[in-house]
Order: sequence, then structure tokens, then C-alpha cells
Amino acid sequence: MVEQGVSAYSLYNKMLLPLVFNDVVTDYEHLRSHVQIWDVACERQVEIVGPDALALVELITPRDISKCAIGQCMYAPLCNENGGIMNDPIILRLADDRFWLSVADSDVLFWVKGVAYGRGFDVKVFEPDVSPLGIQGPKADDLMSDVVGEHVRDIGFFRFIETNIAGTDVILARSGWSGQGGFEVYLQDHRKGLDLWDVFWDAGQKYDIRSGGPNLIDRIETGLKSYGSEMTIDSNPFESGLESFISLGKQAECMSRDALLKISEDGPDKKLLNLVIDGEPLGSPRSVWKVTDAGGDDIGVVTSQVWSPTKKANLAFAIVDSAYSEPGGRLSVDANGELRGAVVRNSRWGVD
Amino acid sequence: MVEQGVSAYSLYNKMLLPLVFNDVVTDYEHLRSHVQIWDVACERQVEIVGPDALALVELITPRDISKCAIGQCMYAPLCNENGGIMNDPIILRLADDRFWLSVADSDVLFWVKGVAYGRGFDVKVFEPDVSPLGIQGPKADDLMSDVVGEHVRDIGFFRFIETNIAGTDVILARSGWSGQGGFEVYLQDHRKGLDLWDVFWDAGQKYDIRSGGPNLIDRIETGLKSYGSEMTIDSNPFESGLESFISLGKQAECMSRDALLKISEDGPDKKLLNLVIDGEPLGSPRSVWKVTDAGGDDIGVVTSQVWSPTKKANLAFAIVDSAYSEPGGRLSVDANGELRGAVVRNSRWGVD
Repeated sequence: MVEQGVSAYSLYNKMLLPLVFNDVVTDYEHLRSHVQIWDVACERQVEIVGPDALALVELITPRDISKCAIGQCMYAPLCNENGGIMNDPIILRLADDRFWLSVADSDVLFWVKGVAYGRGFDVKVFEPDVSPLGIQGPKADDLMSDVVGEHVRDIGFFRFIETNIAGTDVILARSGWSGQGGFEVYLQDHRKGLDLWDVFWDAGQKYDIRSGGPNLIDRIETGLKSYGSEMTIDSNPFESGLESFISLGKQAECMSRDALLKISEDGPDKKLLNLVIDGEPLGSPRSVWKVTDAGGDDIGVVTSQVWSPTKKANLAFAIVDSAYSEPGGRLSVDANGELRGAVVRNSRWGVD
Repeated sequence: MVEQGVSAYSLYNKMLLPLVFNDVVTDYEHLRSHVQIWDVACERQVEIVGPDALALVELITPRDISKCAIGQCMYAPLCNENGGIMNDPIILRLADDRFWLSVADSDVLFWVKGVAYGRGFDVKVFEPDVSPLGIQGPKADDLMSDVVGEHVRDIGFFRFIETNIAGTDVILARSGWSGQGGFEVYLQDHRKGLDLWDVFWDAGQKYDIRSGGPNLIDRIETGLKSYGSEMTIDSNPFESGLESFISLGKQAECMSRDALLKISEDGPDKKLLNLVIDGEPLGSPRSVWKVTDAGGDDIGVVTSQVWSPTKKANLAFAIVDSAYSEPGGRLSVDANGELRGAVVRNSRWGVD
């Protein structure tokens, strides 16, 4: 990564996640036009395997995992007995009785181990030697076809195949943490990481491949939420706009069902919403930005924000009192000491 | 910390742990002669409170916690159903039904939450707003007496009192992560951290107080093991020399009992031992140092090592095949490519 000119990292599951190479805007423009290779090895896997594997996965998420076919990925919030979000992994079903949770930044492995022990489930829960590599951007299909074959164009969204690249067996999924499309390559032998990198790097030269990482502008523009910012153990899927990823009527036992049914009935106290902040480009927050109503009362906080060169606006995610979540509503944001007006938008940054 | 001239940090429970201020040797010599103030806020607490709190704590550790009085601390390995060490916290008993686990660097909070849910225990498990501050070194008693009163001299080893310092309620324990004695002050309101620091800093001027942190030389000389180096989820208390901290005959239910009884009967495959490596001071490892026997076969690895200015020797902890753990035995270490002789010592670095 140093050789590739990385200029900023994040810490993610106790690993370094390379984030910025040139600068956020240059990386963003390249991501939208070409193809990038991302070291997202920090997306660690929690493997659950054994006769009770499905029952355990169903217990820890309100999503209906019985509907997940072998070869399919599902984005699924993991929720505890209070409905609190413990993580929001991509779940890969590798076999009837075998799953990977490709986790965001929180301690899922130990939590699932604890639940499995406490319930006496017949499963193994461990971290396998699996490190994902991202190939993201509009030319990802061309690059992947050159490397693996034309059949990769037929991999459906959130579906995966098993294949071999650089002499090592990998899982190849159409997924990834950008809004520009692409693949994640799940390497299963960390010793082959550089070989795998080189194969894509060399084959990608004709597509102007560059190193990259999850890009803040792309992430916010395309509405990708981040665990730890937009969701925590103190939020729930209703607050976080994840209703479409839960099925409280599913057949299997689910530890968060009762708590989530109650929140669903009462309505969540807070809502995660899209906010466009008025005026010129804002700098990065020096502290948490408060959101206030017309009367100046605190009603929430900004969780992520960025200047969008495409929309020419300051885009932000914010968690505010539910009463203020209607698109079109006017609010204010204390942006590094400067009070700015802001308008609530829908999830596509519009106001319909 | 920056103001105090910190020159190296570690990452510990997702927080910065200031480690080095001048250099390791200068910090060490000062720690042995004077008093230091340590920001060990990274020693996070897992609070367990409720009717089933004792049953839950007993379940997750093979130590007999029924013997822990209110006002007492106990060092206790936490072990899973395979006997693997999940963490090695100091457990503080605050009330009959209330405990803090002051944890080393691993994801205990989520594990205990999982076990508590899985077993249906009537407890709350959460991370309270508690940040420890270390006051360590031979002049710690004098400084603490000046700040709190002469009665602190009567606090027994691994005992604590509740008191008030800098206008905020704290738990004051005679404990800490050095071999030089001292206290840990458990702050219960993070907003008072700087006030608390200043009280000790000002009162400590007459004792030549300095900022410090867990010191590698002191730690190895005095035999303090570190989770993640000398112990992991793949080791057990017999391998790690923690037999004296477990009671497999204790009355309460304990999830690791069966696995540990079996290891106890069979004998552990590996042992953590003290090793003195021959010759001149060695530099820091550039990769894992292998330990080999007379025939050149790999028998283990060095987990921590340092040059001791006091013992004028290269001291190391190593995990090796049990057959080679007898004090006095000769082994070899591949130290950054240089093969050096080494001798197994007892836990006090002797050979008796």
C-alpha cells in the first residue's frame, strides 16, 4: 500500500483499511470512470458451520435467512435481544450448513461464540483464513472477464461462484462497498495475497486501474451506511432505515423479534435521514455537528458528511428525532461553529 | 499525552495506550525510582450486574469467584468451553450482584453478552463510563497519601476503596500493570479526566513524577504476561502457567471445567517459559523468532523479549513443546537471522 501511495488509513476490525490514495475527489472521479483494486482484508469473516448453523444465523438476525440460496449473499443487520444492531454483515451461504458473515467493524466473532455456547448449539464458530479483495468501478466486469472468463458477466447481483485465480481457490461475488458495481474476491490463503493483487494489477493496466478504498463521496452519494457512524448497538433497523432487510414474520426463532415488534408498534424515537446542508463546501467536522430545529433546540447529530462534486451540495447523514424526518423539512446544523440551514431529503437525495 | 512528549503508543481495545515517553530504558529507570502517572483508560470495564451476575462470572472463569469479597480484586483468566483463554482481566467485586471485569485487549463485552443471552441469565452486561488511571512506582504511596490521606497506605494488595478525588467519585485499588507497586484510580466520569490528571501531576512534582505507561523491561523482568502475546484463545491456563489462578473443584458451574480437567490429566502440549538468550543485547524482532532444539527442530516461538539492564541479559517469554520446559535446558533462538543459544529459567529468571 505504501508503494501504491496510500495517504490515509482507517482502523477497521483491528486492521488497517487503506482509504485514500490521491485525494478523496480524485479517487472518487477515477472510481466512477475506471476500475480500482481495494485491499478490504479488514472485512473479516465469521464462519458458522454445523447442524445448527442455520438456526444460529436465524437467531441473530431479523432477516429471513431460510430464503438465502447456496451461492447467494444477503445484507443483514444482526440484532440483539433489545433490537440493537450489533453489526451489518453480508452473509454468504456456502452450503446448507455453512455460512460466512463478512462483518463490518465490531466484535461479532466473540458475540456469536457466546450465543452458540449459551444455547448449546451444535456448530463451530471461528475466523477462517479469508481476506476479501475489492475490484470496483464500471470497468470491473471487463477486467474480471479478462482474468477469469466471460462467464463472470453472468454472476447476478449478490451472487457468488467458486473459482481459481492466481493459482488459488477463491469465492468471487458480485458485491462491494461502492455504488459503482464490481466484485469482491474472497482469498482463502493469505500467503497468496500479493500474487492475487499482481494478477489484477497487471491485467488492469489497460483499464487504467488504480489502488483505492471505500470512498466517502461515493458512499454518501449512493446511500451506503457505515456501522459505527450511522448504526451502533444503540440503534435499531427502524431507526436506521433498514426495514426492507428484516422479516419479523419469519418462521425461525429470532432473538430480536419481540423487541423489534414493540419498536415497530410504537414507532422509533429517532430516524436516520439524508440532509443537504446549504451553502459553500464545508470542511471536515472538528467535533460532532449538532442538528437543531427552528426554535434552536437540539434534535440530533450529523453522522457523516461530504461535499458532493456531482450534486454540488453538502450531503450528510444525520440521526434526528423522528418528528423531523419528513423530506422537505428545514433544519439547522452547527457546522464547526457556523450555523447553516439544511433540508431533509429522501434516500435518493430528492424531495419527492 | 502529546504535551507530555509521548513517543510510542499501542492500540489496545480500540484505544491509544501511551507506552513510551523518553525511551524504554529511561522510563524504566524512572519507574523503579520515583512515581509515574499512566493513561490506561484502554483498560475498559465490562460491568455485570443483576441477580445472576455471580453465576455468569463463575461460568466464564475457572477461578473461584465465590471467594472474592466486596472490595477485592482477583486476576482471573476467562476461558471458553474448550479451555481457551478469552481474556485475563482483573475482576472487581463492587457488590454481591455487581462486578467489573477490567479487561485486557480482546472482545469480552460481546462474548459475555452472547453467553448471558444464550443462557437466559437475569443480568445487565454493558461498558460503563469508567477509565482507569495508573499511579505506579515506589513513591506511589507517598503521592496517594498526600492526595487522598494516610489511610490509603492500609489498602491491601488487590483491594479497593471508594473515595473522591478532584471532585469526582472514584474506585481506588492497589493494583497496576507494573512490578513496582502502586494504584489504579477508576474514574467514573470521562469529563473529569484532565482534572484528575492535574491533581496527581501537581501533587507529584515533589516526587519527580513523570508520564509513563506499561514498560516492556519492567513487565518481562517481573513476569507480567500480556494477552495477545503470551496468551491467546488457542492457549489454556496450564500452558500459560496460570494454574494458581484456577480452581477446577469450585462449586459453581464453569464452562471450561471439562476441557481443563482433560488438559490437566493429559498435560498441556506446550508451555510458556522464561528464556535467557545468550550474548550481547538483541534488537527488536523483525519477525517471529523461532525456538529450536539441539537437533535444529522447531519447537516453539518467542512471544516477548527485551534486554534487561538490571540482569544484564536478554530475557524472553517463549511458548515451546512441554518436553523442553525444564529449567536449565539449553535451546536455540533464531534472532533476526542470527542463531543464539538460550537457557530455560524458572519464573524468577533463576535455575533452581
